[in-house]
Amino acid sequence: MVSVRIREAEEGDCGNILRLIRELADYEKLSDQVKISEEALRADGFGENPFYHCLVAEILPVPGEPQGQGIGSKIIKKVAEVALDKGCSQFRLAVLDWNKRAMNLYKALGAQDLTEAEGWHSFRFEGEAMRELAGK
Amino acid sequence: MVSVRIREAEEGDCGNILRLIRELADYEKLSDQVKISEEALRADGFGENPFYHCLVAEILPVPGEPQGQGIGSKIIKKVAEVALDKGCSQFRLAVLDWNKRAMNLYKALGAQDLTEAEGWHSFRFEGEAMRELAGK
Repeated sequence: MVSVRIREAEEGDCGNILRLIRELADYEKLSDQVKISEEALRADGFGENPFYHCLVAEILPVPGEPQGQGIGSKIIKKVAEVALDKGCSQFRLAVLDWNKRAMNLYKALGAQDLTEAEGWHSFRFEGEAMRELAGK
Repeated sequence: MVSVRIREAEEGDCGNILRLIRELADYEKLSDQVKISEEALRADGFGENPFYHCLVAEILPVPGEPQGQGIGSKIIKKVAEVALDKGCSQFRLAVLDWNKRAMNLYKALGAQDLTEAEGWHSFRFEGEAMRELAGK
C-alpha cells in the first residue's frame, strides 16, 4: 500500500499541477489542447474569486509496492465530501469513451454515464468562434 | 422582430428562473431531476462567492410577430462576450442528442460537438452515491 494524503492545493503547487495536466492530456492524445500557463493557473485559482478549486494527492511510495493504487478513488471520495459540505447535490466528471479503466472506476464508485443513459453531448465554443460571436 | 434586452440576473428574478428551469426540464423529459428551490437559487447565485452567474433575456414582443426568434443566439453571443472579458479560453454547453434544433444552432454558431468529435462522456455522482463515498 502507498500512503496518500489528500489536501487543498496551494499556489506553489501550480508547477506540478501543470505538469500533471500535460501528462493527462498526453495520455488522452489531446496535448495540443493544453494552452494554459503556470501564471494563468496561479491567477485563476488563487485570486479573490477563484475560477477553480483543486485537491492534491501527496503520495509516499513504500519501496517494493506497486504505486498508484486507489489514489483516484481517494480523490473522488474527498471531492464527494467537499461537495456535500458546500451543499452541492451532484458533481460531474468528463471522460473519453475509450478510457474504459476510468469509466469502470467511476461506475464502480456509483456514477452514472449521462451520455449513455440520457444522451447528453458536450459542446465547446472557443477561440475564433467566441471572438466572432462577441464581435471582437 | 421581437425586442430583446440581455442583462445580468438579479435576486428578484429567481422565481422566473426556476419557472424556466422547470419548463426546460419538462421539454427535456427530465422534470423529476429538478430538485432546486427558489431559496437555493437565491442563496447559490447571490451570496458572497456565487456558485453560478445568470443572464436574463427580457423580451418585448411586437404584436403580430412570431416570438422567440434569435433569443438563443443573442444569449450565446452575450455569454461569449462575458467569457472573453473574464479571460476564459472556452465555454461549454450540454445538450441532449435528440434536441437537433439546439445542436444545429450551436454548430451554426461555431461550436464543436466534443462527444461526437472526441468521445467525451459526462458522468454524474449524486445523492446516495455521494453520501456513500463521503461516508456520511
